[in-house]
Amino acid sequence: MYVLPRRGFLFAGAAALVTRLAGQTASRESLVDDVVTANHILAAQDIVDAFGHVSVRTAPGAGRYLISRSVAPAQVTAADIMELDLDSKPVVVAGGAEKRTSYRERFIHGEIYRVRPDVMSVVHCHAPALIPFGITKIPLRPVYHNSSFIGEGVPVFEIREAGGDTNMLVETPELGRALAKALGNKPAVLMRGHGAVIVGKNIIEAVARSVYLEVNARAQAQALAMGARVTYLDEGEVKKRAEDPDPYGRAWDLWKHQAMQQPGR
Amino acid sequence: MYVLPRRGFLFAGAAALVTRLAGQTASRESLVDDVVTANHILAAQDIVDAFGHVSVRTAPGAGRYLISRSVAPAQVTAADIMELDLDSKPVVVAGGAEKRTSYRERFIHGEIYRVRPDVMSVVHCHAPALIPFGITKIPLRPVYHNSSFIGEGVPVFEIREAGGDTNMLVETPELGRALAKALGNKPAVLMRGHGAVIVGKNIIEAVARSVYLEVNARAQAQALAMGARVTYLDEGEVKKRAEDPDPYGRAWDLWKHQAMQQPGR
Amino acid sequence: MYVLPRRGFLFAGAAALVTRLAGQTASRESLVDDVVTANHILAAQDIVDAFGHVSVRTAPGAGRYLISRSVAPAQVTAADIMELDLDSKPVVVAGGAEKRTSYRERFIHGEIYRVRPDVMSVVHCHAPALIPFGITKIPLRPVYHNSSFIGEGVPVFEIREAGGDTNMLVETPELGRALAKALGNKPAVLMRGHGAVIVGKNIIEAVARSVYLEVNARAQAQALAMGARVTYLDEGEVKKRAEDPDPYGRAWDLWKHQAMQQPGR
Amino acid sequence: MYVLPRRGFLFAGAAALVTRLAGQTASRESLVDDVVTANHILAAQDIVDAFGHVSVRTAPGAGRYLISRSVAPAQVTAADIMELDLDSKPVVVAGGAEKRTSYRERFIHGEIYRVRPDVMSVVHCHAPALIPFGITKIPLRPVYHNSSFIGEGVPVFEIREAGGDTNMLVETPELGRALAKALGNKPAVLMRGHGAVIVGKNIIEAVARSVYLEVNARAQAQALAMGARVTYLDEGEVKKRAEDPDPYGRAWDLWKHQAMQQPGR
Repeated sequence: MYVLPRRGFLFAGAAALVTRLAGQTASRESLVDDVVTANHILAAQDIVDAFGHVSVRTAPGAGRYLISRSVAPAQVTAADIMELDLDSKPVVVAGGAEKRTSYRERFIHGEIYRVRPDVMSVVHCHAPALIPFGITKIPLRPVYHNSSFIGEGVPVFEIREAGGDTNMLVETPELGRALAKALGNKPAVLMRGHGAVIVGKNIIEAVARSVYLEVNARAQAQALAMGARVTYLDEGEVKKRAEDPDPYGRAWDLWKHQAMQQPGR
Repeated sequence: MYVLPRRGFLFAGAAALVTRLAGQTASRESLVDDVVTANHILAAQDIVDAFGHVSVRTAPGAGRYLISRSVAPAQVTAADIMELDLDSKPVVVAGGAEKRTSYRERFIHGEIYRVRPDVMSVVHCHAPALIPFGITKIPLRPVYHNSSFIGEGVPVFEIREAGGDTNMLVETPELGRALAKALGNKPAVLMRGHGAVIVGKNIIEAVARSVYLEVNARAQAQALAMGARVTYLDEGEVKKRAEDPDPYGRAWDLWKHQAMQQPGR
Repeated sequence: MYVLPRRGFLFAGAAALVTRLAGQTASRESLVDDVVTANHILAAQDIVDAFGHVSVRTAPGAGRYLISRSVAPAQVTAADIMELDLDSKPVVVAGGAEKRTSYRERFIHGEIYRVRPDVMSVVHCHAPALIPFGITKIPLRPVYHNSSFIGEGVPVFEIREAGGDTNMLVETPELGRALAKALGNKPAVLMRGHGAVIVGKNIIEAVARSVYLEVNARAQAQALAMGARVTYLDEGEVKKRAEDPDPYGRAWDLWKHQAMQQPGR
Repeated sequence: MYVLPRRGFLFAGAAALVTRLAGQTASRESLVDDVVTANHILAAQDIVDAFGHVSVRTAPGAGRYLISRSVAPAQVTAADIMELDLDSKPVVVAGGAEKRTSYRERFIHGEIYRVRPDVMSVVHCHAPALIPFGITKIPLRPVYHNSSFIGEGVPVFEIREAGGDTNMLVETPELGRALAKALGNKPAVLMRGHGAVIVGKNIIEAVARSVYLEVNARAQAQALAMGARVTYLDEGEVKKRAEDPDPYGRAWDLWKHQAMQQPGR
């Protein structure tokens, strides 16, 4: 029977693993590989489509982060990864000015890294199942153990309060700051009529939370559509689950395989 | 890690890009390539199935458009593309009569081009998520930033008002004119019990609007099924988003890759 | 750009085409090919899973039909096709007794062919979207032009009325006759807690009706879940659409390609 | 036309077949092959994602079971299969201590095998469609003939009653016993905010019940969302269906093919 070259992949997954366990002290090359992989995973898992982005802070406490230039996540390669500072301006590279351009909404990343030293990775996505919870007053609440982090709170960012009538994009430092404020100390924030931002203490956590935020949204919506009263995870359960040091490692390894099985999706 | 030949594709995407930025003055070959690509994208994105079609006007102000002969969108090749006039009659080619036959509902295209000089591309589709909004009195409204054009209005075409009991197909010039009238100056019109027609100032816009019309319909339906009050994009947001000169270029490039990854879908 | 070998497929699709236009006088080989193709299409379109079957009458007025021995539709090959009589007993082949066994529910086919001379092809499926309409009192009604045949009526077969408590399977001639009676002169019948049976004047019609029965069920369910009043196709529209001599030919050609792109699905 | 190498697969499927018909006396090699196949089927059918597991008892009456070490189901190979006793401790292999680690929730398996001598196989999954029925008071009931076993009862395990505030995981013998008690003599038990456990008298039954539990959940949810009264399979129908000696064999063969068509999914 055909078998996936799993062990080779585990080796390839070592960067993220080292990053995770050692507190983000992996080599530059490893970090770039992680960002590329995260882009492909988010695309293969249908969390991002042509739009959306993911970044990683270069080191604990650092005022720099890695993110792709402005292309669709499924198409990101190592050559596309740029280094930005907390003002979301490209860092001068090798004696010259950085000429590529990152995403218009890169300020989401810079402004969150600025005020959340615990955050090492940020995802911005438009996963369709999240939209209904951003446009109604129904709060997203945890109905699934792997989505327990939702119990810490997932507020909604109403861009009208921050900027009046806009083109809905967080494309200025000011809107980035307003979004970071709406996020507060939470794991994720929904954006009304737009999508969501999810953060993590490492890139595996940010990606896995993005996937399970969407899984939870679908299950909760289905339960509510049946017109039934729902039992959510309670505070104690949310806390107990947050004590798990590595809840998503196995998922990252599998998703990486799957993303490589269907490149460009 | 396997990487998509993205740059090659960007080059291949140049036709649409040039078309878009230069106001549709691309070569005939480029336009044909765009129509073929648009067909494959719409099929790969599940916007059309065996039925549905897409056309492009040959030049600004021209009374001609390119569309495939009558085959399923996933199977269209350059050799299938025909040139029709505003009466949706084939233009005589190279000294002889055009013997192939285009779609029975080609009048949708000709009659819209006749009364909408701003329209350079037309899509007709049966995307399943649109059907519920054509058969109920619930209006499709914008809940998602990439679908903001819905805020300009998406009326419903009731073919019974135009033609009494029909076979539901817009297969005469008269029904085409009635549909064009129902569309008015809007970006799209739903067809009761049938599907939708979407227009754009270029082929990228027409295709991308088709995709995001469907995304919006699913999200809005899900929100309504939860029984909640919904916050829609407001007029100011819709206007601000309409000012973006190239909101969908990145999506076209990705979708083209994906369509080529899974030919025939 | 990679292009499907469409023309070759059109040639391969000639059997069904000839069958359709000439009133089922195609060669035995062509009919076998049609049944195999129909099995693969129904599997690729997610209308059947491991279960379900499709048959074709050998000629107008004939008391014989072709159907596979008991294997999953995606796996049917020409060598699996058997010939059964109206008692659903295998016809003796080439001087010997037929030793293979067809489906336990083959009586669905034989008993319908017995009382419906207009029927040349029968599909039995378990498409998930049909289940809710078989277990509730909500009638399936036409909301989509390609599903207009639903307007001729799609009754529900309640096996309890015919056989009391059963294992839900139509595995006797008596239950087959009861099902055929419930079907009456309609294009399809739902089976409570089980699935559906769809008939056609040729194999293309039976297969296409199976696909569009499911599309209609999903759209109607979604409209009802939004709590809205629905406008169905009216009697006149249903009649006008029934006059189309070949509404599904283009779909058959595409579906055949797609089934061949993903064998075993 | 391309045809699946079905017969070869049927041969490869012989292990499970022998197991099934001969009452689980297949060779060790056959059992290992069955567990690997079951893992791949459950992944390909979207019943498990990165998480979830499946085990088989080594022989009728035996106090041992086979299960993978802790990896994602899609990635399990024969080399990953371990043998555990009813305390869910690894059995010493070939003179040495077993150094690999199985799933944290392996106690689900051991504690069920301990009290259910009729159970030869256990599946634990997180299939999304099951979540709404675990978090509401709406009982899962049989609406589909292939899901008739649900009529024997599918209780909900509320881990709070057994362990107060936990991390939701059944990762101790005590919680495993509480889950086994909640299961009782039923074919499956839902786990509130987590997933489900499904058992069978052989591995084919456990896997097929897992698939059809999910199919039933989707159909029932859809019917309830339409706000209609539902006719469920009654007691007599459930009993009659339970008499079928081999209802799922054809499905196993197909699913095995499909899992091999898309390795790593």
